[in-house]
Amino acid sequence: MKYKIKRGFASDNYSGAHPEIIRAISNVNIDHAGAYGNDEYTNKAIGKFKDYFGEDIDVHFVYSGTGANVLGLKTVTNSFNAIICSDVAHINVDETGAPEHFTGCKLLIVPTNDGKITVEGIKKYTYRFGDEHYAQPKVISLTQSTEFGTLYTPEEIKIISDFAKNHNMLIHMDGARIANAAIGLNLSFREFTRDIGVDILSFGGTKNGLVFGEAVIFFNKELSSNFKYFRKQGMQLASKMRFISAQFDALLSNELWKRNAKQANSMAKLLELELKKITQVKITQKVEANEIFVIIPKEYISTLQKTYPFYVWDENRSEVRLVTSFDTTESDVHGFIALLIKTIKS
Amino acid sequence: MKYKIKRGFASDNYSGAHPEIIRAISNVNIDHAGAYGNDEYTNKAIGKFKDYFGEDIDVHFVYSGTGANVLGLKTVTNSFNAIICSDVAHINVDETGAPEHFTGCKLLIVPTNDGKITVEGIKKYTYRFGDEHYAQPKVISLTQSTEFGTLYTPEEIKIISDFAKNHNMLIHMDGARIANAAIGLNLSFREFTRDIGVDILSFGGTKNGLVFGEAVIFFNKELSSNFKYFRKQGMQLASKMRFISAQFDALLSNELWKRNAKQANSMAKLLELELKKITQVKITQKVEANEIFVIIPKEYISTLQKTYPFYVWDENRSEVRLVTSFDTTESDVHGFIALLIKTIKS
Amino acid sequence: MKYKIKRGFASDNYSGAHPEIIRAISNVNIDHAGAYGNDEYTNKAIGKFKDYFGEDIDVHFVYSGTGANVLGLKTVTNSFNAIICSDVAHINVDETGAPEHFTGCKLLIVPTNDGKITVEGIKKYTYRFGDEHYAQPKVISLTQSTEFGTLYTPEEIKIISDFAKNHNMLIHMDGARIANAAIGLNLSFREFTRDIGVDILSFGGTKNGLVFGEAVIFFNKELSSNFKYFRKQGMQLASKMRFISAQFDALLSNELWKRNAKQANSMAKLLELELKKITQVKITQKVEANEIFVIIPKEYISTLQKTYPFYVWDENRSEVRLVTSFDTTESDVHGFIALLIKTIKS
Amino acid sequence: MKYKIKRGFASDNYSGAHPEIIRAISNVNIDHAGAYGNDEYTNKAIGKFKDYFGEDIDVHFVYSGTGANVLGLKTVTNSFNAIICSDVAHINVDETGAPEHFTGCKLLIVPTNDGKITVEGIKKYTYRFGDEHYAQPKVISLTQSTEFGTLYTPEEIKIISDFAKNHNMLIHMDGARIANAAIGLNLSFREFTRDIGVDILSFGGTKNGLVFGEAVIFFNKELSSNFKYFRKQGMQLASKMRFISAQFDALLSNELWKRNAKQANSMAKLLELELKKITQVKITQKVEANEIFVIIPKEYISTLQKTYPFYVWDENRSEVRLVTSFDTTESDVHGFIALLIKTIKS
Repeated sequence: MKYKIKRGFASDNYSGAHPEIIRAISNVNIDHAGAYGNDEYTNKAIGKFKDYFGEDIDVHFVYSGTGANVLGLKTVTNSFNAIICSDVAHINVDETGAPEHFTGCKLLIVPTNDGKITVEGIKKYTYRFGDEHYAQPKVISLTQSTEFGTLYTPEEIKIISDFAKNHNMLIHMDGARIANAAIGLNLSFREFTRDIGVDILSFGGTKNGLVFGEAVIFFNKELSSNFKYFRKQGMQLASKMRFISAQFDALLSNELWKRNAKQANSMAKLLELELKKITQVKITQKVEANEIFVIIPKEYISTLQKTYPFYVWDENRSEVRLVTSFDTTESDVHGFIALLIKTIKS
Repeated sequence: MKYKIKRGFASDNYSGAHPEIIRAISNVNIDHAGAYGNDEYTNKAIGKFKDYFGEDIDVHFVYSGTGANVLGLKTVTNSFNAIICSDVAHINVDETGAPEHFTGCKLLIVPTNDGKITVEGIKKYTYRFGDEHYAQPKVISLTQSTEFGTLYTPEEIKIISDFAKNHNMLIHMDGARIANAAIGLNLSFREFTRDIGVDILSFGGTKNGLVFGEAVIFFNKELSSNFKYFRKQGMQLASKMRFISAQFDALLSNELWKRNAKQANSMAKLLELELKKITQVKITQKVEANEIFVIIPKEYISTLQKTYPFYVWDENRSEVRLVTSFDTTESDVHGFIALLIKTIKS
Repeated sequence: MKYKIKRGFASDNYSGAHPEIIRAISNVNIDHAGAYGNDEYTNKAIGKFKDYFGEDIDVHFVYSGTGANVLGLKTVTNSFNAIICSDVAHINVDETGAPEHFTGCKLLIVPTNDGKITVEGIKKYTYRFGDEHYAQPKVISLTQSTEFGTLYTPEEIKIISDFAKNHNMLIHMDGARIANAAIGLNLSFREFTRDIGVDILSFGGTKNGLVFGEAVIFFNKELSSNFKYFRKQGMQLASKMRFISAQFDALLSNELWKRNAKQANSMAKLLELELKKITQVKITQKVEANEIFVIIPKEYISTLQKTYPFYVWDENRSEVRLVTSFDTTESDVHGFIALLIKTIKS
Repeated sequence: MKYKIKRGFASDNYSGAHPEIIRAISNVNIDHAGAYGNDEYTNKAIGKFKDYFGEDIDVHFVYSGTGANVLGLKTVTNSFNAIICSDVAHINVDETGAPEHFTGCKLLIVPTNDGKITVEGIKKYTYRFGDEHYAQPKVISLTQSTEFGTLYTPEEIKIISDFAKNHNMLIHMDGARIANAAIGLNLSFREFTRDIGVDILSFGGTKNGLVFGEAVIFFNKELSSNFKYFRKQGMQLASKMRFISAQFDALLSNELWKRNAKQANSMAKLLELELKKITQVKITQKVEANEIFVIIPKEYISTLQKTYPFYVWDENRSEVRLVTSFDTTESDVHGFIALLIKTIKS
């Protein structure tokens, strides 16, 4: 059957939502509440974020990850600015030009092998400041964990953010999988964002067990005063916002975010462990969060995909991407490995 | 307490979701499903729409009403086009310029007293076709039910859509409250949309009991081929789309949409009936759907709002807007009326 | 012959350029000069503007009037802002939505009978400040002289600019025909712009005898720091800018601007005088600059247009627009009047 | 003196205009002419283009090269499309993001060493057609002559345009220096554009001796029907267009374009010849049009620039760009060479 996907490693958004999240939605479904975020649930959820990141921040909820990224970037740029990011950045290759269209900015692309950009790569673009012919670099966007499932260390981020500050630029972090990063780094959210110079954070919810919903966090409130207008103009202002807020409240309570991300990450580690035993396949990136990139000989792929959906990342290299999720189980991993071994032998 | 809103008449998006909707979300929260609408639930929900509107249509789900309107308009326009709508149209006064910003089009505004525009008002703008200095009119956008809670009759729409066809223009309908319109008109959805020349329909879900979610329907598939790209670029493509689809499936099953809209409309009628008995207030618009516009002497308003929140529509005239919802009860209405009478007497 | 237009009253841009302007272009056509305005001629022309408007202003040259208006507006707005103007404003009806497309802003339209808006009309829109659903009013754009050839008095502008200041808004003036306004008002440029609160001025050149070229003047340099980037991004940065600058230098030297505008205005007055003698026609607007609006019975129009091209402004009223120019002669006026009388009699 | 630039090799837009161009402007400065291109001069100039490129083409005049590029691209794209070009393309690095801002499209960048892209580089991006998450490649933009002064052979273009056709893509050519290319290739304009699959051409005027003015040519009229609206919305519609048209008429008459480009190219060849004799400097790109890229030891540069302005292209490599123009003389070249030799020796 065309749509009969049961379980697999295609993406963490193939998963449903964590049951506690559904419960949270149901729990706030009582009576009336102010629309557009003027409600007690939203207030409470914002408070939860402040518990993690400290006071004096601005937290806003939006529908989608693309929305979070684009609106965060729009709020701090003019249309003549440029945004620097990696060649595999979601904002570069998977958002259909939404950043360019909504912000008017140019994206300046730094090639990477592991999804992580460095000051060396950034420097290629940070010149001609004040030259009206050149889109003026304003934001460096980092994805954490990266699209390759790798992690920037706090030190690596600090070097980039220091460079940014020196050039009057800002740091945006696409944290669609920020919970997986926190687990992978074994650090608090704050330690690898606010404390080391991140200015704007897309805090992901959907990929860590929400039905829908992302947060945009500004660590400097002076940057965010126009956000609310852009959110509405950007079609990301939810009328019944309590239903996003309640999800975030639940995610940030009882360590649900941690339990979810830990499960995803540890299943990725298990997958890595098992894959390393199989000489016919080759892991191509460090497994630091919840993604594994692995070269699997072409002839095995379609058989595997039939039972365990996943995406081919690079057809030429026969490299595939396996994503684990909060709901990935040991039995998913072992089932996949068993099928792989069986397929190789047959 | 600042956020302690219990029940009132502020807006149909102050309501939560219908319990069957929450159940629907919960029911599809099993295993994995293809992301971005490649799932069986989305397929099923689209089929439900086809049951109502006929085959050969294109149905797409988005997050928000603004998203539905803007993306529907973007898909059929070039940036040099103009969109004609009423002065009180949501796209004109409540979307922070999102239509202009995302489409690049100009909005041409027809003044109305009752929210309904006519060919006479439209004609002021439909000239200079082919003149490169003039934003070329391309779409007429009608809201049904209107922002004043009034209804276009099918005949009224037909006259406008015939005029549109004669000028190579299209009809967009903002149906944020289309269910209330269907009940008010006592017609099938199809009879006052597709059958009389509507080309693009924003089919509202949120205001009729969903958690979130709207549908954009193209009745001519030739118009819609680019929609999917604009939806993604417009930050309205839900990754876990099954959770929107399941809501629409539920809404269009077991006549939930009808039960919800009927309740809202009949409570509006009851409110109208009761208000008419009170000589100190004056209803200013026909009550044909789920909104009542009524002049209430200024001195009573804040007392009423404290218990039953609602919006002042026109401060100068002391005109307020009362919106009923699927969850409005007779006791809400009678409580409000009793308080009004008591306030007048005191 | 299709293109055989000799002389008429169609528009002041049907005229060519004043010979002194051509000479100025020719005069600077020597050797090399820095591109994009980094040249002595541009510096000199800016100095001329400072002679008229005072120091501490920012002057920038652009190609076109639409460019001047749009870039001036873009520089001081965010995409969620709104710009208030009259229903006949050039930015509203003759720029194909360029302001909306380039700025992302909404235009809010004040109906007028004489092209002049008032605080009363503006007030309809200046509310909901801080409301994220409503495009936030930021600029009031006035055309001087207006599209009806009428003039705002300094007192009228002052009232509007005081209102603007009180609402944290700015005043933009579309001065495509500012020289005609200065003559009509018998005031210095400065007296009816900078001195009474205009913030951004499109200073027209083309309609007053240039080959091409307009200036954008910011009277508050804090507003203009981003202009240069928007000018380039807006495709209005001339590489061989000396050829615009030289024209403005010439226009502002030896009172060329004044001679040109005086000729145009006095020919308009003469036309008015003569038309008033003819009982079959009716002048509909005050003649204060270089445009006359006059109702001429439909049956005469095409005959007149054949020899003296002009535009029909309002077909229903049979109202036409006659524009005089720096090169309009008494013989043009008398010839037209004679033909009109002859046509009426025949 | 700050602005005392006399002659040098900074850019072909540091030159003034050819005297015949000034004369052409002066010659059409008689009486009235229809505005916005509705005039006999524009008609005549378009006819000249048809003499070169054949009938059934659409020719439009605009102010600037950025305008020509951006409007040509806008006319054939939707905002969800992508445009492929080289890393040194003017549209990529010298237009302040104007293409992204006005079209909404993403630019996809192919690295080059010589300014010329190949199918191999393009192929990296031409996949995921139909995938709504990926900006859909629609146009390949080639610069001829390139920003490095090199030339695509007709065969090289044909390979790319065949590839484009096979992928339902179009070829745009930025011909800001197309006359220099024609001379360098010793081919008619048509042979290396229309005849080998170029769809849209920015035909440069300013850099070849005009005061201002570029042409956009569509070789397939089905592509261009919306151009006129975008030109106006893009602020590139000249009111007194006859003054652009007359320049192009002159440029395409009496082989002025050829004389100008030949002079520029032959002076580049002479410069190359002389530079090759000097062992301390190293030419880094083929000299095929009117630009020379050459490494000159850092210590000599500022001395040279004082007398003969030019730009440093790559500070790290001490590589500079020398541009010759229609008005570059042998004495300019010999003077520069002499100064270089003297500087080296001192």
